[in-house]
Amino acid sequence: MDIFEKLLKHMGPIGEHSDRAHGYFAFPKLEGEIGPRMKFRGNEKIVWSLNNYLGLANHPEVRATDAKAAADFGLASPMGARMMSGNTTYHEQLERELSDYMGKEDTTLLNYGYQGIMSAIDAICGRRDVIVYDAECHASILDGLRLHPGKRYVFKHNDIEDCEKQLRRATDLANAQGGGILVVTEGVFGMAGDQGKLKEIAALKDKFEFRLLVDDAHGFGTMGKTGAGTGEEQGVQDKIDLLFNTFAKSGASIGAFISGEKAIINYLRYNMRSQIFAKSIPLPIVIGHLKRVELMRKNPAMKAKLWDNVTKLQNGLKSRGFNIGRTNSPVTPIYLQGDIPEATAMCLDLRENYNIFCSIVVYPVIPKGQIIYRLIPTAAHTDEDIELTLKAFSETKAKLDEKVYQVAEIPMV
Amino acid sequence: MDIFEKLLKHMGPIGEHSDRAHGYFAFPKLEGEIGPRMKFRGNEKIVWSLNNYLGLANHPEVRATDAKAAADFGLASPMGARMMSGNTTYHEQLERELSDYMGKEDTTLLNYGYQGIMSAIDAICGRRDVIVYDAECHASILDGLRLHPGKRYVFKHNDIEDCEKQLRRATDLANAQGGGILVVTEGVFGMAGDQGKLKEIAALKDKFEFRLLVDDAHGFGTMGKTGAGTGEEQGVQDKIDLLFNTFAKSGASIGAFISGEKAIINYLRYNMRSQIFAKSIPLPIVIGHLKRVELMRKNPAMKAKLWDNVTKLQNGLKSRGFNIGRTNSPVTPIYLQGDIPEATAMCLDLRENYNIFCSIVVYPVIPKGQIIYRLIPTAAHTDEDIELTLKAFSETKAKLDEKVYQVAEIPMV
Repeated sequence: MDIFEKLLKHMGPIGEHSDRAHGYFAFPKLEGEIGPRMKFRGNEKIVWSLNNYLGLANHPEVRATDAKAAADFGLASPMGARMMSGNTTYHEQLERELSDYMGKEDTTLLNYGYQGIMSAIDAICGRRDVIVYDAECHASILDGLRLHPGKRYVFKHNDIEDCEKQLRRATDLANAQGGGILVVTEGVFGMAGDQGKLKEIAALKDKFEFRLLVDDAHGFGTMGKTGAGTGEEQGVQDKIDLLFNTFAKSGASIGAFISGEKAIINYLRYNMRSQIFAKSIPLPIVIGHLKRVELMRKNPAMKAKLWDNVTKLQNGLKSRGFNIGRTNSPVTPIYLQGDIPEATAMCLDLRENYNIFCSIVVYPVIPKGQIIYRLIPTAAHTDEDIELTLKAFSETKAKLDEKVYQVAEIPMV
Repeated sequence: MDIFEKLLKHMGPIGEHSDRAHGYFAFPKLEGEIGPRMKFRGNEKIVWSLNNYLGLANHPEVRATDAKAAADFGLASPMGARMMSGNTTYHEQLERELSDYMGKEDTTLLNYGYQGIMSAIDAICGRRDVIVYDAECHASILDGLRLHPGKRYVFKHNDIEDCEKQLRRATDLANAQGGGILVVTEGVFGMAGDQGKLKEIAALKDKFEFRLLVDDAHGFGTMGKTGAGTGEEQGVQDKIDLLFNTFAKSGASIGAFISGEKAIINYLRYNMRSQIFAKSIPLPIVIGHLKRVELMRKNPAMKAKLWDNVTKLQNGLKSRGFNIGRTNSPVTPIYLQGDIPEATAMCLDLRENYNIFCSIVVYPVIPKGQIIYRLIPTAAHTDEDIELTLKAFSETKAKLDEKVYQVAEIPMV
C-alpha cells in the first residue's frame, strides 16, 4: 500500500479538525509586540498563552542587545557545528555564567532544547542502563527515551512510593546487567503546573544508586530565591546531577543548556549527536542570552512582579470557585467539565466577546468531558488584565453551567 | 554501578583526545566576519570549513535584513510552538515562496533541521511500515530511523542493485503487514560529496510502490539550474515525494523545511512532535530566510561563481595528483594515507605554517591509516585563496610522502 494513503485517513488528534480550526484554534497568528496585549485577527486581546514569564521578550535592554548583536554579526554566524567550526568566546562566556548561576561546575549550550535533551539522554544511557522516569514528562524526554536501547520503568506522576518501587526493579536489573540508573523528572510540569518532587526523589539517593536529570524548562527564572530554578526552590540544587533548562520560556529566546559536573558535561559536549552533527546556536542569540541572564540575576523585581500576578490570578480564580488543580508554579490551569463543541463555543465567546486569548486542551489530549484552559501569567500583565480575565471566566463559566454553549457541532471559525 | 562512571571511562572517539585537542582540533574559534579569510588564534587563515556555499552569510543585503528584522521584532518573537502561538504571516509567506522555488505544492518550516527530519520520519512511519535507506545517510536520519518501531533495510551506499534487493524484501514484508514503504536518501552526501542516485532510485517506482524522502541539505542552492537542488539537477524533482532542505548550509542560517504534496505537508504540520512541542523558529530568522531565498533565485551569479571555484579547486587538486574520490558536488574531500600522529602533524603544519584551516577526519570515524581533509569551496573564495591552498597541499603531501610527519605521538597544541 501507499504509505501516504494511511496518513491521510488519520490526520491526528488536532489535524483532523484542521479544516475548521486552522488559523484560529491551531496556528493562530498573534501580532504586534510580545506581551499581554496583542492583536488577533485585527483586534486586541489579553494574551495568556506565552511563556514570557519575566516579560523579557520586550525588555528595552533585551531589544537593544538583540538588535545590536544581529547588526554586529548577522544571523549566519557562526557556521557549522560547535565542535567543528561553530564555537565562539561568547558561547564559552555564556556557559561560564550559566554554571555560576546554576551553582554547577560546567554547562554546555544546546542548539535547541528538544533535540538537546533527546541527545543528552541518548549519550548517557547504554543498553545495560535503566531509565526511571515520571509518567508526565515532556514529549522531548519521551522521544529521548524512545532512543534508549535498554529498559525503562515509568513511575506514576509525582508518586514517590511508585518511584521507589520502580527504582527497586531498576536496581535489580541494572545490577544484573552491570548498568547504571538515570532518573528523569521535571522541575515544573508545564500542563498542570505542579512541581516535580525533587526533594523526595533526591532523598532516595540514600537508598539507591542513581543519577538525577531534571528538565526545569518552566522553573528557570521563575522558581527559587535567585531564579535558579526548582532545585533551588526545594533546596536540592546540589542533588541534581544534570540540570536541563531552556531559553524558550523565561529566557524569551531559543536554545537550551545542561549543567552538571565538569567531566560529565565535557563528555556530553563531545558526544551528543544533535550537537556534534548540527549547527551551533547563532551568535546574536548567544549574546541575547548573556543579556537575559544578566537581567534575571540583577533584577529580582521581575520575578517578584511575576509572582504578584501569579498570586492575584490564582487566588482570584480560587475565590470564584474555579478548580486550578495542584499547581504550585506560575502555570495556571482551569479545569472545567464539557464536551468538545461546548468547549469550542466557550473558547470562541472568551476570545471574541471578552477578548481573552488563552490555550485550551480537550479530548483526545485529556479524557472526554474535560476542558482545561491553561493561563500563563507574566510580569508584564497588569491588574486590569487580571480583573478583566477573572470577570470573563466567571461569566463564561456561568453560561457553561447553564448549558448556553450546548451546540450541535463545533462552530465554524 | 554509577551510570556516570562508565561514561568517564570512554569519552568517545573525539572526546578521548579532548585534553590536547580542545580549542584547536575540536571546538576551535574562528573569529571575524564569516568568509574565506578569518582569524584563528589571532592569525588570518584561509578557511575551507564553512558551508557558506553562496557567500550569503555576509552578503550586504542579508546583513541589512538580519539587522533590521532583529531591530524590528527582537529575537524573542514569536513565543511558543507554531501550532499554539508561534505562527506569523512571515512564516506562511516563506512557506509559499519555498514551495514555488522547489516546485512543490506546499512546505512546512522546521525549527531545526536535525529534530525536524527525525520527527518527519517518525510522523510518517508506523509499526507496519518499512524504511529502506542508504548506508551513508546523515546522523539526523539515522536518529529518525532509531525512532521507527517497524523494520528497516539498509542498502549499500548508492548501490542501485542492492537498493532494488532491499525494496523487494521491504515489499514482501510491507504487503504481509499491510504497511507502506519509505525510501530515504540524500541529494549530496556531505562527507564524500557524491550525489545520491535519485534518478535511478526514482526509476524503481515503476517496479515498486514507495515514497521517496530526500535530504538535500548540501544541494539546496548549489545544485540544479535554478539552485532548487539535486532533484532539479538530475531532472527528477517531481519524483521526490518529500524534499527536506536546511538553511544551515547555502542558506547561512538555522532551521529547515520540508516540501511535498499539500495534504501530506499538512499532515506533517500537525503531527511532527519536535514541531508541535517546541518553539517556532524566530521571526527575524524567517525574515532573513526570505531575503536569502530571494537572492538565491534572482542572483544566479552566486551559484556560477561557486561552481567556478569548485572547478578550479577540484581540477587543481586532480592535476596535482590528489585523490578527491567520487565527488560531483562542491564538497571536496582529499584522501591521503597516514596514521593519526602523522595526520595531526600535517594538519598543524597546514594550519600554522601555510595558514590553511580545513576539517580533517581520521580513525575511528574512517578506517585506520586513512586521512580525509574536507574542503568546502564557496562563491566568496578568490583565485589567490585557491592557489595558496593548492600549493600548501602539494608541499605538505610531499612531506607526508617523505615521512617528515612521522612523530612518536600526537603533538601538543
